[in-house]
Amino acid sequence: MSELVPPHGNKDLKPLALEDDALTTELEKAKSLPKITCSSREFGDVIMLGIGGFTPLDGFMTKLDWQSVCGNMTTSNGTFWPIPITLSTDDEDIKEEEVALVNSNTDEIIATMFVTEKYTIDKEYECEMVYKTTEMEHPGVVMVMEQGKYNLGGPIKVLSDGGYPEKYGDLYMTPTETRDYFKDKGWSTIAAFQTRNPMHMSHEYLVNIALETCDGVMIHSTLGELKPGDIPAEVRSEAISTLIDNYFVENTVFQSGYPLDMRYAGPREALLHALFRQNYGCSHLIVGRDHAGIGDYYGPFDAHNIFDEIGGALLTQPLKLDWSFWCYKCADITSMDICPHSNEDRLLLSGSKLRYLLSENLEVPENFSRVEVLTILRKYYASIKKDEKVNVELKGHSAR
Amino acid sequence: MSELVPPHGNKDLKPLALEDDALTTELEKAKSLPKITCSSREFGDVIMLGIGGFTPLDGFMTKLDWQSVCGNMTTSNGTFWPIPITLSTDDEDIKEEEVALVNSNTDEIIATMFVTEKYTIDKEYECEMVYKTTEMEHPGVVMVMEQGKYNLGGPIKVLSDGGYPEKYGDLYMTPTETRDYFKDKGWSTIAAFQTRNPMHMSHEYLVNIALETCDGVMIHSTLGELKPGDIPAEVRSEAISTLIDNYFVENTVFQSGYPLDMRYAGPREALLHALFRQNYGCSHLIVGRDHAGIGDYYGPFDAHNIFDEIGGALLTQPLKLDWSFWCYKCADITSMDICPHSNEDRLLLSGSKLRYLLSENLEVPENFSRVEVLTILRKYYASIKKDEKVNVELKGHSAR
Repeated sequence: MSELVPPHGNKDLKPLALEDDALTTELEKAKSLPKITCSSREFGDVIMLGIGGFTPLDGFMTKLDWQSVCGNMTTSNGTFWPIPITLSTDDEDIKEEEVALVNSNTDEIIATMFVTEKYTIDKEYECEMVYKTTEMEHPGVVMVMEQGKYNLGGPIKVLSDGGYPEKYGDLYMTPTETRDYFKDKGWSTIAAFQTRNPMHMSHEYLVNIALETCDGVMIHSTLGELKPGDIPAEVRSEAISTLIDNYFVENTVFQSGYPLDMRYAGPREALLHALFRQNYGCSHLIVGRDHAGIGDYYGPFDAHNIFDEIGGALLTQPLKLDWSFWCYKCADITSMDICPHSNEDRLLLSGSKLRYLLSENLEVPENFSRVEVLTILRKYYASIKKDEKVNVELKGHSAR
Repeated sequence: MSELVPPHGNKDLKPLALEDDALTTELEKAKSLPKITCSSREFGDVIMLGIGGFTPLDGFMTKLDWQSVCGNMTTSNGTFWPIPITLSTDDEDIKEEEVALVNSNTDEIIATMFVTEKYTIDKEYECEMVYKTTEMEHPGVVMVMEQGKYNLGGPIKVLSDGGYPEKYGDLYMTPTETRDYFKDKGWSTIAAFQTRNPMHMSHEYLVNIALETCDGVMIHSTLGELKPGDIPAEVRSEAISTLIDNYFVENTVFQSGYPLDMRYAGPREALLHALFRQNYGCSHLIVGRDHAGIGDYYGPFDAHNIFDEIGGALLTQPLKLDWSFWCYKCADITSMDICPHSNEDRLLLSGSKLRYLLSENLEVPENFSRVEVLTILRKYYASIKKDEKVNVELKGHSAR
């Protein structure tokens, strides 16, 4: 049997989390260190570094790394990396010293860091290189433009699991755990399906395509920060579970979550998505139309084409798929690649239209979604109608 | 845009066919050379060598090559090669000398060869290594066991196109021509679909899977020797054309033919199928269940698994697919990988049952085949019913 794909840039996973006595000692020491508060994005990155999802990084990037990642998609030592992993602060007093990183939502100490460099960056340059825009309508640009005045680079030791195992139970798996899971199943080719939404029949179709050539599919949802209006992780996970239980061959599909925030960086984020899926042990990543894009910032196939530009930098390969939909003439779920008919023959339903239909409890057209999935979504929309507070919460921290 | 996959074991294609003046001169010289009569299999190999489909070979294998290919799937100089390409004779008088190769059916001179070695082989060893059996029920074993007493090794010059362009017109394309075709279309990822039969909905499904991730699919039929009862190439080609015209997106699928006989060597032949498709410019080969197998000689996934054993010896990659069929519960064409139901929910129709239904002009179950395809096949079966001579011919040289 073939082996799993090795981690990115290193023979073994490099989880930066401390355990047992080392953890206790470091936590005690951390209490007296200067504190740096992490944004939601930085928090997700710390937890990801802790579980080895960002192997082979040792911590937050220095200026040389930042510069090289923005410009050439490699760290200063030549490791392929498509998006800067940086920590920022407005704190004028922080020097090159040991600090403690704190979750802004809970005040929990989540890591210690030896700051080897405090530096300023050209934020517009980062946005232009990574997001291809500096417009403040782009949420990834906002994250960069609103981050602190200084970046702090240096290695970290992670002291927290971010509360994910407690909150999400079995849904939350580390790269070590998914690799063990794949080995137990005897799988060597696994496609990751990236999602932050419940899955409808068109998504089921994409997973089926992957199942034709891979041993298994991991439906991999972000448990990080979402956009307002997105379905909370618990509801999404329930909807995905019912799909797995009813519509796939047993022991071919499972779901799991990861702690990162979406950056909506389109093609560059597709590369990051493939990179950390390599660490999770996935040989393939399903890359659909406008993967990780938002608005009209990226062409529909930019995230496909960028994989052709990086040579063999990543071992995890893209499964480049196109739009899928119900076609009335095919009388089937099909896709742009294989349906010879035209858009007027196709059931094309926007996300906002679907949300409207569900929240008003109106009928959703047949062959768009499985009835079991719609039942779960209707229940959720009915619950937030009754409780305006949930609606408010949706705008902030819906998935945490 | 990415490049086409390069030819096997060489920067450029190595067609061994002579052209123009060189051809005229060599043909004249050949008339006075000792003649070696080629079997159908050997004839196909000569024509394939002529058009560069067997790049980088220079001719028929020597004993050292034969030995190494049987034992290690490489020629004596280390080039990956899964099945011996050999020429045999019973002629006691042939020495290490120049000879002319003759098509047994037409007496046409098709090549000259400089015999560098005349040798005997252990036929049972070849059968055991290549076919995994020495049973005379296996048609590939019969080919080997019934070949001449001596093998002749040495480089060849090809002097014939085998009559394929004249007989099949545009359907017959050389590796140079398919590569030009792909470049014209702007394709870089092309999956070959190997077939020696008309295509039904299950085959259409396999092609669709390939279209999801490749730029195009080449339906690639053997124009070599078939088994008795197989559909003649002309009828098959007409049936495939109607499928292409009616059921695929324009400019994504085309059909073409190649001159080799089937060997039915299962896994080893799947490797040969991938190897020569690399020469034709295809990045992928669809490898289904029991690819190129016959009877129960090979496990259903032997032809999948053997690709894991050869490392990166071939650049053309297998698309490993499983059985596909109509499932009444899915109400769809689906496959073993994605249909969660059981065989009793599935429309499984054997080839011999289908032939029976068509030849008796009985109804074929719905959702097995496209109506346009059935119409063509019914017409063919009606024609051979009327003409017993065609039935007899079927047992011999149906496709030549």
